[in-house]
Amino acid sequence: MAKEGADMTEETEYMIDKNVKKEIDNVETSGNAKEMRAVILSGFGGLNKLRVTKKAMPEPQDGEVKIRVKTCGLNFLDLMVRQGTIDNPPKPPLVPGFECSGIVESVGENTKGFEIGDRVMAFVNYNAWAEVVCAPVDFVYKMPDEMTFAEAAAFSLNFVAAYMMLFEVANLREGMSVLVHSAGGGVGQAVAQLCSTVPNVTVFGIASCFKHAAIRDSVAHLFDRNVDYIQEVKKISPEGVDIVLDCLCGENTGKGLSLLKPLGTYILYGASNMVTGETKSFFSFAKSWWQVEKVNPIKLYEENKVIAGFSLLNLLFKQGRCGLVKSVMDKLLCLYEEKKIKPVVDSLWALEEVKEAMQRIHDRGNIGKLILDVEKSPTPLMASDSTETSEAGEEEEEPEGDNDSKERMPFIH
Amino acid sequence: MAKEGADMTEETEYMIDKNVKKEIDNVETSGNAKEMRAVILSGFGGLNKLRVTKKAMPEPQDGEVKIRVKTCGLNFLDLMVRQGTIDNPPKPPLVPGFECSGIVESVGENTKGFEIGDRVMAFVNYNAWAEVVCAPVDFVYKMPDEMTFAEAAAFSLNFVAAYMMLFEVANLREGMSVLVHSAGGGVGQAVAQLCSTVPNVTVFGIASCFKHAAIRDSVAHLFDRNVDYIQEVKKISPEGVDIVLDCLCGENTGKGLSLLKPLGTYILYGASNMVTGETKSFFSFAKSWWQVEKVNPIKLYEENKVIAGFSLLNLLFKQGRCGLVKSVMDKLLCLYEEKKIKPVVDSLWALEEVKEAMQRIHDRGNIGKLILDVEKSPTPLMASDSTETSEAGEEEEEPEGDNDSKERMPFIH
Repeated sequence: MAKEGADMTEETEYMIDKNVKKEIDNVETSGNAKEMRAVILSGFGGLNKLRVTKKAMPEPQDGEVKIRVKTCGLNFLDLMVRQGTIDNPPKPPLVPGFECSGIVESVGENTKGFEIGDRVMAFVNYNAWAEVVCAPVDFVYKMPDEMTFAEAAAFSLNFVAAYMMLFEVANLREGMSVLVHSAGGGVGQAVAQLCSTVPNVTVFGIASCFKHAAIRDSVAHLFDRNVDYIQEVKKISPEGVDIVLDCLCGENTGKGLSLLKPLGTYILYGASNMVTGETKSFFSFAKSWWQVEKVNPIKLYEENKVIAGFSLLNLLFKQGRCGLVKSVMDKLLCLYEEKKIKPVVDSLWALEEVKEAMQRIHDRGNIGKLILDVEKSPTPLMASDSTETSEAGEEEEEPEGDNDSKERMPFIH
Repeated sequence: MAKEGADMTEETEYMIDKNVKKEIDNVETSGNAKEMRAVILSGFGGLNKLRVTKKAMPEPQDGEVKIRVKTCGLNFLDLMVRQGTIDNPPKPPLVPGFECSGIVESVGENTKGFEIGDRVMAFVNYNAWAEVVCAPVDFVYKMPDEMTFAEAAAFSLNFVAAYMMLFEVANLREGMSVLVHSAGGGVGQAVAQLCSTVPNVTVFGIASCFKHAAIRDSVAHLFDRNVDYIQEVKKISPEGVDIVLDCLCGENTGKGLSLLKPLGTYILYGASNMVTGETKSFFSFAKSWWQVEKVNPIKLYEENKVIAGFSLLNLLFKQGRCGLVKSVMDKLLCLYEEKKIKPVVDSLWALEEVKEAMQRIHDRGNIGKLILDVEKSPTPLMASDSTETSEAGEEEEEPEGDNDSKERMPFIH
C-alpha cells in the first residue's frame, strides 16, 4: 500500500491542474451539460490541494438516483484520502466525500423505491462533496421526517459503523464494558449512545482534556488521551473490558489487547495515528503502517481473545454488503424514531471552508460530526485566503509545483 | 513455552519413578488413607509414560465434592499433555484428564447444592482419570436423569467449547455457514448438532475419508482432509464461509482466514498439528509453534475479518470464567432435554487400555468421543503389553531411562 501511495504522489501539480482545467473546458464547450460546485482534491498532500471549482453535473444511470445535496459528512478518513494514505486511492483529481443528504432530483431507468422530492441520505464511493450526487439505490436511504439534513449527514457512517462494530462484530450484551478511543468524535458519540440502549453497559472513553466537560455525560468514565489510561481503566475494572474500539492503530493495538477480558473483542476501525501534520507525513505513515504489531493466533488462543478489523467503506464498496448495511440502517432509524439515538453535530461549514473544517478534525477539535453545508455561504472572516490563519494547516503545505515524492525521499533514511 | 517444555523433560525417568514410589509408600504407611486406581503420567513423552497405579484417595476440601468416577473424557489435549507440548504443564508425575462423570460420594465443608448420591459431571484441572476425583462445586453440574455416564463424559468439554465458540465468540445466526476441521471428532460432532439448532445454517466439514460414511448426515458438505478443500468450499460458496473452526493451527491459519466472508470469524481452538508420532516430536512442535503465521490487524481492517482464539480450559482454570460456563451448561442441558443435541460416543476403554485409546485419537480413528470407563475390565486381548501391537505408538517410545532432552537436542539444528 505504501508503495502505491508513493507512486500516486509522483504526479506533479502541473499535470493535475491541467486535468482539472480540461474537465472544466469540457463542461464549457458542451452545450447540454450543466455545471455544479464541488470540492476538488487536485493531488495528494496538504490543505492547498483542496479547492472549490465548477464541474460537470452527473446524470443518474440505471438504478441510480440523482440527489440535490444539502449536507455532507466530513470524516477523519477524508484526511487520509487527502494525504493519499488509504489503500488503493483513486487517481486525483477527485471529489472527496463518502456520505451526503439531500433531495431526490431525478431517477435513472429501472430505479425503484424512490421518487422526486424524497428526502434521502446516501453513501457514495467518493464524489459526495458537491451540489449534486448520483448513487445506486442500494446505498440510498429515506430520511425520517423529523431528521434534519445536517443530522442525516452526521448519521449514516458514524451510526452504521458504531452499530455494526458493537452488535455484528462484538456481540454487545447486557452488563458488558466498552472502551472507545476518540470518545468525542462522531463514531465515539454514536458508540456511547448505542451502548446506552443496552442495559448496564459501562463505557470508558478517551478524549482530549478540553472535550471532557462537553462529553462527560455521554460516558461512565473519561480519561485524558495523554495519561496512562490502561492503568486508569484497570483501577476501575481490574479484569479489563469486553470491547475495545480503536481508531488510532499503531502502538495502541498491543495496549488495547492487554485491556481485554477473556472472550473480549478488540476492534480496529481506523488508523488516524497515520495522519500527521508534517510535510514528511507520508513516510511517517508508511513507517508506522509496517510497524503495527502483528498478532500471534496462538496467543489469542491462550488468552481467549478476539481481534477484528472493521471498515464500513470496504464492506459497502469492495465487499458488496449493502444488503446487510440496509438492514442495520433500518434498525438504526427505528432507534432514531424512538428518540434513543440522535447524531451530534459539531459544526457546519460552507464548501469553501473545507480547509478550516479539515484542520478542525485534524486537530481533534470537534465534538461530534463536522458537516459541509452546500447551501451555506462562507463566513466572511474565513473567506478566500483564510488558511493563512491556520498554522498547523500551513505545516502540511508543500511549495507549489514541488514533486511530493522527491521532496519526501530524504525522510526515508 | 517451548523452553518450559524442554526444561520439564529434563527430569529423568529414574527421578520420576522414585517420586511415584514415594507417593505409593505414603499411602501404604498411612493407616487411614484409602487407595484408588488412577492413570499416572510418569514423565512427558510416548505412550510408555502412562500406567495405571494405586494412589492416595483425595478427600474433599471446603466447597468441594468428592466424586466416585464412572467415566472420563479423553481429548486430543491429553495427547499434548502427555508430550509436554501445552503451555505451562504441571510437573509429572501427574494424573491426566480434564473431565469426568460419576456419583457424589461425600461433600466438603461449606459445600452447597450437592448431596451424596447426586449424578454429576465435572471439569477438573487434571486428575480426572482416577476412581475418585474432588472438584470445587463451581465446576460440577448435575446430570439429567436420562443421560448416561458415558454421555456425560462426552458432553462437557465438547459441547461447552462448541457452544461458546459458535454463540459467544462468533455470534452464529440464521443463514450463516460454518467450516469445521475434524468434523468427525467430539467437538466437530457437537458443532454440527448445535448448528442444526439454528435455522438454515450450512456446515462444511473436513474429515478423513474413512469417516465420511459415518458422519455424512451430520454436515451439509464433507471434504477429505487431503484434498484442496479451500477450492472445494469456494466452488460451493464462492464468497466463503462465516465461521471457520480450526483445531489444527499451523499453515491452516492462513487458509482458514482466506475462506472467511467479510465480517467472518476464524476461531483457533486447538493445535493438534503440533502433536506428531515421532520421537523428535517435541522440537517439531516448537518449530511449528513459532512458525505460526502472525496476523496484521490492518489486514483484518481492510478485509473486515475477525480472528479469535478459544481455550475452554484456560477460561475455566486460569481466567475464572466458571460462572459463564455454568450458564452455558444450563442452556446446553435444556437442549439435551429437548433432544436437540446428543453426545456421540466413539468407544469405551478401561483405564488399563488408555494407551490404545490414546493411539486411536492420535490416529484420528475416532468418530465422536473416546471414553475411559473406570468400571470396565480391560478386553482380554488387549491386556498387559498390548501396546506391542500398536505400531504408530511404538514410534513415539523412547528407550527406557534416556534423558528426553538430550535425546532431542540435535533436532534443534
